[in-house]
Amino acid sequence: MPVNLSAPDPSKLFPVAGVRIGVAEANIRKPGRKDLTVFLLDEGASVGGVFTRNHFCAAPVQLCRQRLDERQPIRALLVNTGNANAGTGEDGLRRARDTCEALAALLNIRPAQVLPFSTGVIMEPLPAERVVAGLPAAIADAQPDHWARAAEGIMTTDTVPKAVSARAMVGGAEITITGTAKGAGMIRPNMATMLGFLATDARVDQALMRQLALELAAGSFNRITIDGDTSTNDSFIVIASNRAANAPITALDSADGQALKRAMLAVARQLAQAIVRDGEGATKFITVRVEGGKTPDECRRVAYAIAHSPLVKTAFFASDPNLGRILAAVGYADIDDLDQTKIELYLDGVHVAAQGGRNPAYREEDGQRVMRQAEITVRVHLGRGSAADTVWTTDLSHEYVSINADYRS
Amino acid sequence: MPVNLSAPDPSKLFPVAGVRIGVAEANIRKPGRKDLTVFLLDEGASVGGVFTRNHFCAAPVQLCRQRLDERQPIRALLVNTGNANAGTGEDGLRRARDTCEALAALLNIRPAQVLPFSTGVIMEPLPAERVVAGLPAAIADAQPDHWARAAEGIMTTDTVPKAVSARAMVGGAEITITGTAKGAGMIRPNMATMLGFLATDARVDQALMRQLALELAAGSFNRITIDGDTSTNDSFIVIASNRAANAPITALDSADGQALKRAMLAVARQLAQAIVRDGEGATKFITVRVEGGKTPDECRRVAYAIAHSPLVKTAFFASDPNLGRILAAVGYADIDDLDQTKIELYLDGVHVAAQGGRNPAYREEDGQRVMRQAEITVRVHLGRGSAADTVWTTDLSHEYVSINADYRS
Repeated sequence: MPVNLSAPDPSKLFPVAGVRIGVAEANIRKPGRKDLTVFLLDEGASVGGVFTRNHFCAAPVQLCRQRLDERQPIRALLVNTGNANAGTGEDGLRRARDTCEALAALLNIRPAQVLPFSTGVIMEPLPAERVVAGLPAAIADAQPDHWARAAEGIMTTDTVPKAVSARAMVGGAEITITGTAKGAGMIRPNMATMLGFLATDARVDQALMRQLALELAAGSFNRITIDGDTSTNDSFIVIASNRAANAPITALDSADGQALKRAMLAVARQLAQAIVRDGEGATKFITVRVEGGKTPDECRRVAYAIAHSPLVKTAFFASDPNLGRILAAVGYADIDDLDQTKIELYLDGVHVAAQGGRNPAYREEDGQRVMRQAEITVRVHLGRGSAADTVWTTDLSHEYVSINADYRS
Repeated sequence: MPVNLSAPDPSKLFPVAGVRIGVAEANIRKPGRKDLTVFLLDEGASVGGVFTRNHFCAAPVQLCRQRLDERQPIRALLVNTGNANAGTGEDGLRRARDTCEALAALLNIRPAQVLPFSTGVIMEPLPAERVVAGLPAAIADAQPDHWARAAEGIMTTDTVPKAVSARAMVGGAEITITGTAKGAGMIRPNMATMLGFLATDARVDQALMRQLALELAAGSFNRITIDGDTSTNDSFIVIASNRAANAPITALDSADGQALKRAMLAVARQLAQAIVRDGEGATKFITVRVEGGKTPDECRRVAYAIAHSPLVKTAFFASDPNLGRILAAVGYADIDDLDQTKIELYLDGVHVAAQGGRNPAYREEDGQRVMRQAEITVRVHLGRGSAADTVWTTDLSHEYVSINADYRS
């Protein structure tokens, strides 16, 4: 059961001019499943991306990186579920190239103008022939208002499709932003999430797109964790179709650039949080906020130590205010000169620990009350500076074990 | 159910001359439980220790460190379960001191000659008055052949007491080594385990004891992980009672010193592995061996990435050879210039991945067969050097979640 998350209302997902989406059933792993999605971009779109830092990155990630580095004018994204095409060596690269070539031939573009994405089981050969056989149906299905279908088409263990839209005034014109993402396990994105696609019709210089993708990921997908496992396939793509009437954005730190980033970040953050809300076996949505650090980096380290601790996560699952486990995680977060007598811990508004020990005014029933909520903020103050950072995570439940013990069967 | 581990046969636990052990029921957290243990050392024992690197270290850990640093001649160890006296601030230090003072008064020694140890729930006040009230019974119980009782007296969520004995020829005389340890969750020791006590009657210079403890921990308790949570209370104490007839050991790199280390390391490693075998919810004992690295440190990093991955651990629980998850963990272990095309993966004798992809000769049924075993060795070859390292771990089961969701209730 996802935490306060329901499927998007298709009528509230705005089309992005210049982007059409088609979905098909290609029987890649299981029959009767929407498992193939194409994003078709009109000529002139700006595209940037960030990808997993996992050295075992999948074949499609390798091709995406290469094609974006070469500044190829991207015209299509090809996404399959059911198979990650990771841990598949040279053969995997060849199969990924084959699918791009097939799509390029059907669209009369060059293969290097196609970005491939795969998600699913690792270390099994991609059934490229089924992907290729499904392409005509996916292309025939392509429409600008198919974002809800895209959100379904890229799901794996997700229980709810994830898509978000927004409109904003940027550079003197209204622009539209719509995005979709998938992911529920193997989530500790490092540069990006499992798969995230964010499009706007705004006019944005191609030269800004990589940096834009990096900055958006830093404030959204790079601040979430479910199980601490950084995937082999994490990919986050930002598209600007350049069809809106805004004054073209040529610098991200300009007023217009900042307005665009703010609007896009709000959408990216909702998508990232949706991944956490739909985290495998999640029953709680936990915000971990660490303040009073010397640097944001050390705050993030402490936040991730808390967010990854199986003992903290099982205590949240049990609604048990066994909050010493949070202090223990703060203590092993590898901050050399941490002074435990400066640590303050809050659970929502409840002041649990003061000066590194139990707050004398803390009453167990107050902790218990907060722990029963579906959404909880853990706030730690390190008492050594003014930096802060936030990550979002879930609890660890029986259901997580069941899902991951049974995933392939 | 522990993995291939049963309670020690008391007749095979050899007393160590100069060390007496007494156990009592002090009602520290729950009635009817052996929760208080004292180790009484004759005058002239050499003692060393290593302790958790968690900055939120417990009050007793702070006192132990201080007393060993001051080279106090240690005469007694005082161990309680049921309460960790961690996250308890100045008040916790005072309570730990109170219990040491009470024991010292009863034994007619100085409080600084007592080392305190606590394990149990964090951030609750230690009921020092109950510890103190239980001391006379513990002292009255003290006998050299009470190692099996000690193993019981220090248990928390352990399901099996853990103690190991050995004899060896060192420096021209037979020496005896006996140790005990406890721990089942919050196990990713960093300098030591939850609690481990290893005694020998060998004659060893006091000046060597800290280094001896460090080296023994490095090859045993610092190579295990259950859930990646480094405890606030990890303590590993090495005692040499100086009662055997061996030529006194004055250098660890001498022939005699090395013989002693080998014999003690074998015992320490069995104790450390016993902790893993009794890991919370464990159904499998997993050895993760990483070879072909540039340094032992990077091999250990990769081994821990595998050993901590919830996805790898749930696959072991399910006996599912979903082995791409292991490659994914290798990939995110943060080795900057890792070449995925050099990676080889073996499951016991089965060659699963070659050159970073699925080994063409690998058959799923071979992986399946190994995955069903209770003991499995994962061997990864990085193909970049000749260093190696090993860690031991468990799977992640429903039972782990149950135990930690219910621990306080």
